[in-house]
Amino acid sequence: MNFSVIIYVIGAVLRVEGALMLLPGAVGLIYGEREAWSFFAVGAAAFLAGAVMCLGRGKRGELFAKEGFVSVALSWLFISLFGCVPFVINRDIPRFIDAFFETVSGFTTTGSSILRDVEALSHASLFWRSFTHWIGGMGVLVFLLMLLPFVGGAGLHLLRAESPGPQVGKAVPKLRQNAFVLYVIYTAMTVAEIAILVCGKMPLFDAVTAAFGTAGTGGFAVRNTSIASYSPFCQYTITVFMILFGMNFNAYYFILMRRVRQAARIEELRWYLGVIAAAVLAIFINTRHIFATAEQAFRSAFFHVGSVITTTGFAIRDYNDYPQFSKVILLLLMFIGACAGSTGGGIKVSRVVVMVKSAFAELLRVVHPRIVKKVRLDGKAIEHETLRSINTFLISYIAIFIVSLLIVSVDDFGMMTNFSAVAATINNIGPGFDLVGPAGNYASFSDLSKLTFCFDMLAGRLEVIPMLVLLNPVTWSRAIRLHRRSRQGK
Amino acid sequence: MNFSVIIYVIGAVLRVEGALMLLPGAVGLIYGEREAWSFFAVGAAAFLAGAVMCLGRGKRGELFAKEGFVSVALSWLFISLFGCVPFVINRDIPRFIDAFFETVSGFTTTGSSILRDVEALSHASLFWRSFTHWIGGMGVLVFLLMLLPFVGGAGLHLLRAESPGPQVGKAVPKLRQNAFVLYVIYTAMTVAEIAILVCGKMPLFDAVTAAFGTAGTGGFAVRNTSIASYSPFCQYTITVFMILFGMNFNAYYFILMRRVRQAARIEELRWYLGVIAAAVLAIFINTRHIFATAEQAFRSAFFHVGSVITTTGFAIRDYNDYPQFSKVILLLLMFIGACAGSTGGGIKVSRVVVMVKSAFAELLRVVHPRIVKKVRLDGKAIEHETLRSINTFLISYIAIFIVSLLIVSVDDFGMMTNFSAVAATINNIGPGFDLVGPAGNYASFSDLSKLTFCFDMLAGRLEVIPMLVLLNPVTWSRAIRLHRRSRQGK
Repeated sequence: MNFSVIIYVIGAVLRVEGALMLLPGAVGLIYGEREAWSFFAVGAAAFLAGAVMCLGRGKRGELFAKEGFVSVALSWLFISLFGCVPFVINRDIPRFIDAFFETVSGFTTTGSSILRDVEALSHASLFWRSFTHWIGGMGVLVFLLMLLPFVGGAGLHLLRAESPGPQVGKAVPKLRQNAFVLYVIYTAMTVAEIAILVCGKMPLFDAVTAAFGTAGTGGFAVRNTSIASYSPFCQYTITVFMILFGMNFNAYYFILMRRVRQAARIEELRWYLGVIAAAVLAIFINTRHIFATAEQAFRSAFFHVGSVITTTGFAIRDYNDYPQFSKVILLLLMFIGACAGSTGGGIKVSRVVVMVKSAFAELLRVVHPRIVKKVRLDGKAIEHETLRSINTFLISYIAIFIVSLLIVSVDDFGMMTNFSAVAATINNIGPGFDLVGPAGNYASFSDLSKLTFCFDMLAGRLEVIPMLVLLNPVTWSRAIRLHRRSRQGK
Repeated sequence: MNFSVIIYVIGAVLRVEGALMLLPGAVGLIYGEREAWSFFAVGAAAFLAGAVMCLGRGKRGELFAKEGFVSVALSWLFISLFGCVPFVINRDIPRFIDAFFETVSGFTTTGSSILRDVEALSHASLFWRSFTHWIGGMGVLVFLLMLLPFVGGAGLHLLRAESPGPQVGKAVPKLRQNAFVLYVIYTAMTVAEIAILVCGKMPLFDAVTAAFGTAGTGGFAVRNTSIASYSPFCQYTITVFMILFGMNFNAYYFILMRRVRQAARIEELRWYLGVIAAAVLAIFINTRHIFATAEQAFRSAFFHVGSVITTTGFAIRDYNDYPQFSKVILLLLMFIGACAGSTGGGIKVSRVVVMVKSAFAELLRVVHPRIVKKVRLDGKAIEHETLRSINTFLISYIAIFIVSLLIVSVDDFGMMTNFSAVAATINNIGPGFDLVGPAGNYASFSDLSKLTFCFDMLAGRLEVIPMLVLLNPVTWSRAIRLHRRSRQGK
């Protein structure tokens, strides 16, 4: 294990985080809030700590997959640890464990909250809370790739460990340039959403934070009623942008390169939009009788399907009164999640499609043993390696889900609360059903459960494997043994 | 598709069923019940229908995997269709769909019931209801193998399609002899249980039906309170026998062959017993405060863990008042299920073990890419083929579960009711939680939901694939095309 390079990566990430904390500080100053200073102070501390950790510089070119996973997992842990301190210092969220939960939920773009009254927070804290979504959405480390002089496969390993979805191309050419293009698209779309929302007469502060929550598919809002108090125009705008940010960013890349046809041919996109259309229709029909007008029923169905499948987690009403059928659909969408290569969470549409296709191919083989049918996505045959890693993902995912459910159930809430809370955190959605529904929050869970949810959120955001590598004793035992041996040799 | 051989197999199965119906008829005569005649009449009809279907004799040696799956799936459908008619005729269960549900639940050894008052049934019907468990437990077709002069791979295909568990040995030597040995063990253990229960002062009729329910890991009882009204001695006896019948029958085979060490070395068995011990301990500690004495708490934990993991479904109290933690454990045990090669249902212990081991192996490979670790069970490396089929099983299983949950949720009961009802039927357990808990039943579901449950029970008992092959249009389209072509050729 190359510890020096891991420390270097964490240090670099902390430096960036320290710099980014200037923004909530500035927002606090604009509103004349005392709370601003907590962000300047912690930002400075994070920057300093990062600078110290970067002194070693790290031995170059020795970053293997294992170090990549460990660096990413630890980086996310550290930015959350530093990121939550301002909340504790400025007493907006005085309990450390709650502040940590809220920050992990922010960076992982989950949007689960332990706050009973969001509107009591200072503007500086609210801004930072939503800003963590925006930072976490695209990935802190993708951002780093633009800045750091890593060479060779090192950057690729980091990118693979952090990127949503099963299939980061084996040879991403011009890595730094690509990361730059991604951030330009991301920023441009965020600005566009802010502009449209402001045109729709949403206050600027609300528009900025809502856009951060949408872009990162996070879901923290600055009102206790989430998005319910805004106009239907703003609600539709947010719905459309949620769905746009849940799309495979390759599509935008293609469109920028003027290869629109290629964008339209991405198979995952078509499944994604198809599932959304089917779910909206089913829920609309199933819930029509609850609403006074068809428009309201449609808006609610459209908004919540978009919010749940993209794993954003905004709400415009408490959908706990939906019929069971609609609730089950929403629950299933939680697991499907957004497209690979988007800012959304969940299992990812392309993984689900590949799993279903491979099962179909196997069933066909049972009936007609002589027919050999390859599983294809976008016309290309899926490699055996990819199928195997999807399988590992699925089993690890189920295992984490089960263990979490067991731990959380000790708190003795209802089954729907526990099940949907684990689902909402591991899939980075935010609200679930019953106690943790849109009108509820995660405050009443025990500290042990909250830590479990933190693990689930990180596991979900980093696609399971990095967190398991971090926890796997094998990762460390051999490293420690080698480290000891090299010391004895001296 | 070789239709003639499929018809022949179904015919042979129906003949056996017709003969077996003499028993409930005889029981009815002993108790002087009018209902006896319905069994003689339907039994005669089934035997006749079977005899007619067997006239064709079927072309020998042309039974491929596809025909095997279709034969098995259709055989189970047909015995359920004939098996439910006596209930309808003798008015014990007047509605056809309810009688069909009850019979499918019997043959698949599920034990889910639509009856609100079991004790109102005639002895003949009660006997037949429990007897279906005993017949279905070992598999109708395994029984057939002893009787039919099939040659070559034909019998093997049938056995594979019907046997629980992922791994029927590739070359089962002396197939008919093996089936015979299995039935001798099965019968001897059933008789032993009846004897012990009668010694424990249980009435003979109750002992016989309870033993049928235990042996087939079914769970139909002849009292409205299931097993609650019997003595603790009888309850402990049933618990031990449930666990014995949930064990891999290879163990008994080895013990008979005086290879006790080999039996003790079966890895699946050790996991199975380990999971039971851990679950009993956890639930005992978690529920101790509900009970007056530690013995009661232990008995309840021991009984229900045994009942649920073996997928039997007997109960000695309504465990809906258990804390959430214990309920989640029971829910998880529902999915794990019993050992492969037992009469129990569920995903099967060995499948779960292999899945977890293969995920661990993959995670190790991420950390140390150069280490090649084979997944082993009983010291033998698992073939790639087996891993792939387990994967297909898992995905198909999840897909059926999701579609069923969606259909059932239209009835708008609670999430725990719907989820546990689907889990309890697809895993062949019987009762679930809330409305379908030990004190409840499946009567209030719509007909569509009941049919869905019937499909799930059959899919669970036949390990998913046969039912999917039966429903797959590909299975039929090509067969019909070929059939037409051969007709045109004439």
